[in-house]
Amino acid sequence: MADPRFFTCRGPLSIARICELTGATAAPLADGNLLIEDVAPLAMATSGHLSFLDNTKYLTDLGTSEAGFCLLRAEHTDKAPKGMILLVSDNPYKAYALAAQAFYDQGGTGGNISPGAFVDSSAEVGNNVRIDAGAVVGPGVVIGSDCVIGAGASVSHCLIGNNVRIYPGVRIGQDGFGFAPDPAGHVKVPQLGRVIVEDNVEIGANTCIDRGAGPDTIIGAGTWIDNLVQIGHNVVLGKGCIIVAQVGISGSTKLGDFVVVGGQVGIAGHVSIGTGAQIAAKSGIIGNIEAGAVVGGYPAQPLRDWHRQSVMLARMVKDRKSGK
Amino acid sequence: MADPRFFTCRGPLSIARICELTGATAAPLADGNLLIEDVAPLAMATSGHLSFLDNTKYLTDLGTSEAGFCLLRAEHTDKAPKGMILLVSDNPYKAYALAAQAFYDQGGTGGNISPGAFVDSSAEVGNNVRIDAGAVVGPGVVIGSDCVIGAGASVSHCLIGNNVRIYPGVRIGQDGFGFAPDPAGHVKVPQLGRVIVEDNVEIGANTCIDRGAGPDTIIGAGTWIDNLVQIGHNVVLGKGCIIVAQVGISGSTKLGDFVVVGGQVGIAGHVSIGTGAQIAAKSGIIGNIEAGAVVGGYPAQPLRDWHRQSVMLARMVKDRKSGK
Amino acid sequence: MADPRFFTCRGPLSIARICELTGATAAPLADGNLLIEDVAPLAMATSGHLSFLDNTKYLTDLGTSEAGFCLLRAEHTDKAPKGMILLVSDNPYKAYALAAQAFYDQGGTGGNISPGAFVDSSAEVGNNVRIDAGAVVGPGVVIGSDCVIGAGASVSHCLIGNNVRIYPGVRIGQDGFGFAPDPAGHVKVPQLGRVIVEDNVEIGANTCIDRGAGPDTIIGAGTWIDNLVQIGHNVVLGKGCIIVAQVGISGSTKLGDFVVVGGQVGIAGHVSIGTGAQIAAKSGIIGNIEAGAVVGGYPAQPLRDWHRQSVMLARMVKDRKSGK
Repeated sequence: MADPRFFTCRGPLSIARICELTGATAAPLADGNLLIEDVAPLAMATSGHLSFLDNTKYLTDLGTSEAGFCLLRAEHTDKAPKGMILLVSDNPYKAYALAAQAFYDQGGTGGNISPGAFVDSSAEVGNNVRIDAGAVVGPGVVIGSDCVIGAGASVSHCLIGNNVRIYPGVRIGQDGFGFAPDPAGHVKVPQLGRVIVEDNVEIGANTCIDRGAGPDTIIGAGTWIDNLVQIGHNVVLGKGCIIVAQVGISGSTKLGDFVVVGGQVGIAGHVSIGTGAQIAAKSGIIGNIEAGAVVGGYPAQPLRDWHRQSVMLARMVKDRKSGK
Repeated sequence: MADPRFFTCRGPLSIARICELTGATAAPLADGNLLIEDVAPLAMATSGHLSFLDNTKYLTDLGTSEAGFCLLRAEHTDKAPKGMILLVSDNPYKAYALAAQAFYDQGGTGGNISPGAFVDSSAEVGNNVRIDAGAVVGPGVVIGSDCVIGAGASVSHCLIGNNVRIYPGVRIGQDGFGFAPDPAGHVKVPQLGRVIVEDNVEIGANTCIDRGAGPDTIIGAGTWIDNLVQIGHNVVLGKGCIIVAQVGISGSTKLGDFVVVGGQVGIAGHVSIGTGAQIAAKSGIIGNIEAGAVVGGYPAQPLRDWHRQSVMLARMVKDRKSGK
Repeated sequence: MADPRFFTCRGPLSIARICELTGATAAPLADGNLLIEDVAPLAMATSGHLSFLDNTKYLTDLGTSEAGFCLLRAEHTDKAPKGMILLVSDNPYKAYALAAQAFYDQGGTGGNISPGAFVDSSAEVGNNVRIDAGAVVGPGVVIGSDCVIGAGASVSHCLIGNNVRIYPGVRIGQDGFGFAPDPAGHVKVPQLGRVIVEDNVEIGANTCIDRGAGPDTIIGAGTWIDNLVQIGHNVVLGKGCIIVAQVGISGSTKLGDFVVVGGQVGIAGHVSIGTGAQIAAKSGIIGNIEAGAVVGGYPAQPLRDWHRQSVMLARMVKDRKSGK
């Protein structure tokens, strides 16, 4: 059970209700009125708990789990212990997400502006927005409804849509790294754009998003950004992108929709990444990437070629060691 | 036009005034008294706007731009649309920077210490310093004149020069990562140095600069540091260096003047990087680098060799695929 | 001498006292009652100062140092200038750490909760805890005794042990990056775990530690984490680990005890790193690593093989240039 100091469980909920919310199908003989008390991971769950299996690395946990209920794919039902009530879903992770949301309030926005927050009197803040202690909202900023601005975050020179979650320590809207290099003293280029954050965006802790230099920096609707990410000035992210922790995207680069960028990737400035492209963790991108491409390495290449290269190098080193 | 909620335009300004400020030369027949209303990027500008062309990736934008005025190099004047008034400069980006500074106040320091800032009574703060809400200035800290300490930044154990801009969330002066490793418990080495930030330095959002262990950590005059950079204890950066986002510089390493370090580079501890050296993004530096060297890769090597290596590897993988 | 604006020296201390504290052995003829005024690095020390030699890169500094006293290994005593009083130790860096602690208070916790800190009324704070301005302690959080929560840090959904130092700008306990990706809108997975920080842990500036998704995220006793590190949800770090700056550890990965992770390393999710493993800076870890292994590269391999690979590649490029 989640620690009641931090979380409040709204269970029990019936199997029928969970199936309705998640689209899962209960095993034929299961009684839809049976009550599920709570959710828990396979390794920690007991008889009243609903768990899930998605990543097959955890198949062993399934076999030994004491969970009373489990969301999983049809192909894994025969790996479950006898007596476990199985709720079959094509997407057990998404189904678990929806079930867990039913059991636990997601930390509602609550419409509470902390007395420890600093909100400029010229900022416009929508309905049901939570602003935590230490957060700083600058002059002229517009924040839509149902947003959270986390502890110690600072936002300036930006327009923020609805249902946006800005995590603690995020920095939005400061000057980009824009200057004409000069041995007599770098000459600052005034940064005259804004940051536009569209609806349903999440921005992880201590991530930095610089405002545009002239055009705006834009974070497309439904895009999720992890912690400690750097987004340079004029960058445009499409809709539904996933940007993993510690990625750096240089100025004026544009990502299409649904691009997935692995952790610690670096992307050069002024390049375009096509819709649906996927970039392996730690890659370095120095040119345009086509829509749908799956790439890795530095400079990035098709992921398969990059793997081949790694295997080839390992073999060559082995051959040299053995004197071939 | 820049969003008036965030920026105030001081235009119009005459062509003659802009030429005077930037050193650009207007086309022979241009009337110096003609007024320019504002600045804007090529793709957004209209007839009253001054734009610029520097990066040739944007030559297409020049051809289709509706800008009334444009700063560019002599070699690009024939690519501009007819009727556009051309201001020729050897360094159009720097010229644009100076012009844009004339149109827009750079967010003056204003001498305003926010009531939401926490400034220790023993700190010394110079004239015309702006300290934003949530910033924390520790005991004994000295800040020169014309500085900005951004929202939520914290500075301790440091002496800061004049005209220094510290962005939101920056951490200066905390203990470095100094300890004698020991299975019975790592033994902390007291960090007894300071951070010295010389004049005209910019330090980007959420960047961390640890104080010296005994010697000081020093950031040379006119050096610009981007966001999310890590600077270890005892590091010395020369004058006019450019450190791009997410770089990590380990303890006791020294950079000469005008060193350029690309994004996500890592530099080992106790090494020296010579004056004017340039390090490609994502490189790993584990030894000394000579003055003026241009290097890339991990371990770093002359940039040309690193490119050769990449090309060679790609070819080898291709050959293997095709059975050669 | 350390800047008295920031540090207070408790010297002088006698040679005998320093030997007692550090286990060092003074040269046979040295008078144990001789007083040492202060500590200083070799290059800055004068006759009243105690210095140390550990890293042999600084042997030259030893030869020219004016330090009156020096901690060093027996094998280096013949490199010291005549007249310098030598204190021989098997571990001079640890000995110096202990000596410097005797000369300088380490910035005691002091039991002072800043009026500029925001501590929720339902949080439990132990004895002798310092909480600096701008720090935010969320509801239900438990903090043990003798801890420091640095300026502008935020902690939520966590239980913190004794003698833990959390540096400025640290983010602990926010939601992990947990969602089921979906083109119609990523579906958030409620993050129902906590962060457990055991005793004697240090967490560097602007580092982020997400709370568990169901299990807890755990930082083992005596582990030291540098600045700007990302720790994903459900990660478990063993005891006494050393995590250098800008490392990223993805969700559900487990490290054994005394693992050393170099700067800018990335570790994939759901992998295990065995006790005592050492990972070279900038490596990319995508699978399990055995206890005691020393690895480097991406994908990581035995460090020696990775070095061989680098040497081999450099030679191949050279051969091609010279037409071989």
